[in-house]
Amino acid sequence: MEVFTKERLLQVHERISPYIHETPILTSRLINEIADCSIYFKCENFQKMGAFKMRGATNAILQLSQEDQKKGVVTHSSGNFAQALSLAAKSLGITAYIVMPSSAPQVKKDAVKTYGGIIIECPPTLKNREETAQKIVEEKGATFVHPSNDIEVILGQGTAALELLQKQPHLDLVITPIGGGGLIGGTALAVNLFAKSAKTIGAEPFEVDDAYRSLISGTIETNQSTNTIADGLKTQLGDQNFPIIQKHVEEIIRVTEEEIKNALKLIWERMKIIVEPSSAVALAAVLKEPAKFKNKQIGVIISGGNVDFNQIQL
Amino acid sequence: MEVFTKERLLQVHERISPYIHETPILTSRLINEIADCSIYFKCENFQKMGAFKMRGATNAILQLSQEDQKKGVVTHSSGNFAQALSLAAKSLGITAYIVMPSSAPQVKKDAVKTYGGIIIECPPTLKNREETAQKIVEEKGATFVHPSNDIEVILGQGTAALELLQKQPHLDLVITPIGGGGLIGGTALAVNLFAKSAKTIGAEPFEVDDAYRSLISGTIETNQSTNTIADGLKTQLGDQNFPIIQKHVEEIIRVTEEEIKNALKLIWERMKIIVEPSSAVALAAVLKEPAKFKNKQIGVIISGGNVDFNQIQL
Repeated sequence: MEVFTKERLLQVHERISPYIHETPILTSRLINEIADCSIYFKCENFQKMGAFKMRGATNAILQLSQEDQKKGVVTHSSGNFAQALSLAAKSLGITAYIVMPSSAPQVKKDAVKTYGGIIIECPPTLKNREETAQKIVEEKGATFVHPSNDIEVILGQGTAALELLQKQPHLDLVITPIGGGGLIGGTALAVNLFAKSAKTIGAEPFEVDDAYRSLISGTIETNQSTNTIADGLKTQLGDQNFPIIQKHVEEIIRVTEEEIKNALKLIWERMKIIVEPSSAVALAAVLKEPAKFKNKQIGVIISGGNVDFNQIQL
Repeated sequence: MEVFTKERLLQVHERISPYIHETPILTSRLINEIADCSIYFKCENFQKMGAFKMRGATNAILQLSQEDQKKGVVTHSSGNFAQALSLAAKSLGITAYIVMPSSAPQVKKDAVKTYGGIIIECPPTLKNREETAQKIVEEKGATFVHPSNDIEVILGQGTAALELLQKQPHLDLVITPIGGGGLIGGTALAVNLFAKSAKTIGAEPFEVDDAYRSLISGTIETNQSTNTIADGLKTQLGDQNFPIIQKHVEEIIRVTEEEIKNALKLIWERMKIIVEPSSAVALAAVLKEPAKFKNKQIGVIISGGNVDFNQIQL
């Protein structure tokens, strides 16, 4: 396992800072009253392209050699990471190849195009996605960047918690949703290195509780179905982030779809900010176990704010 | 007509400041690109109880004598002003009587109760509402406060534009939606008194274009139907605010329901903030007439963020 030091994470933060926003930390008196604790929301919904993934994508590109950067980067994703890698690459004047299943919604394809990414369509299976990405690596010399299972991506995602802890060093707990493991992995590293005494907790929908089961079994588990509103959390952990999670994540709290929707409405209605359903999973976990969080200082990483309102009837 | 001076508006602002938020002014690079101008959004969706109406309600109460304050205040409203007067009264330790039609949605009644207002139900006609309010004035000695046609309310609403102009004195235009005329009236006064050269523009849905027609006819017009998503804008002007609007509002731009929805989605998706449909009417007006606003410095008052997400299927 790699060695992670304060210096390394600080270097990552310094490297990406010119290309990302230092996002605000918001609080809500009313939500604190309801939850009976003090919650500090680190608002990555206000990050460039609307999600924390901009941090990891930027770091993954910046740590490449100039020569490798020129050949471009490639990933397979149809979500926020595809947009993040496209925008990060555009900002740095290089090419991002995005492998997407031909079945991906047009709105996702359009978003990637808006940010300058080059879409390569493939049949909608994981095997096809991996093979298509591999072909681009071979043909173009582009570097493959995994959306969550890449150490430089993980470290980049950890800078959100780093910024939060620099402003709020006395947090007792930091909570993030768990999808592919990049955000929770980076957060757990940052908390372990920089918090005075905080622990990291993960939050996951019951419907895709692969990470919860992985911690119990000790091997990376998958989901048989992915029937959740938290569409950013359907992916599985990887061999790079799982050991970090095993070592540094205190526990994983699972929540129902109803609990996620209630937390989502609470944030929208009371804080007047748009967050995506995946982000509400962390607040849902706090509301689910009041005894655990009572009177504590809690950091919650709001992962993003990319909601497709064309899907919602006004 | 009353005399309005800089000193008077500054006094109002000083009086209410301990009880309201100085709301943030946000900008969006992307919306500026789309609109080809620089827009400064004064975000009253982050105001206490989620709308600018908190300002006027607070001022209306604070300018009463101690003795009158003790007897309470009464209004008829089923919208944001009912909540605003309830919360303002609660903050000041006095009673707010809210006359509401018995047909008002439970969610609106609950919101008023949350803020400590006492609801008095009446049959759903304007005549009944006025009579019921009058009865409370007589029985309780409470002071009637109109949601929009009251000079102290109008001056209170004007403090949002005052704060905006204190931070951005070089605006060319300030735009607000028009409902009952309180916000646009107060804004027009503030702009007239404090802006170096700015003019005030109103924005109104075609479906409830009573203010537009009133400016043409010179008398207060009403709406035959109120079929708009901008539910805060269904009311008519009054004899207190209409002369101010006639004197100080440069023009009124009307927009379609489709244009309102598009502007609403643009703010939600790009700025990641919740604003209510009425607030999007002002941005819709800017997007509708690009030639008029090109390269200008525009202030937009975001009136509020109270959206009932129970109505929206997630």
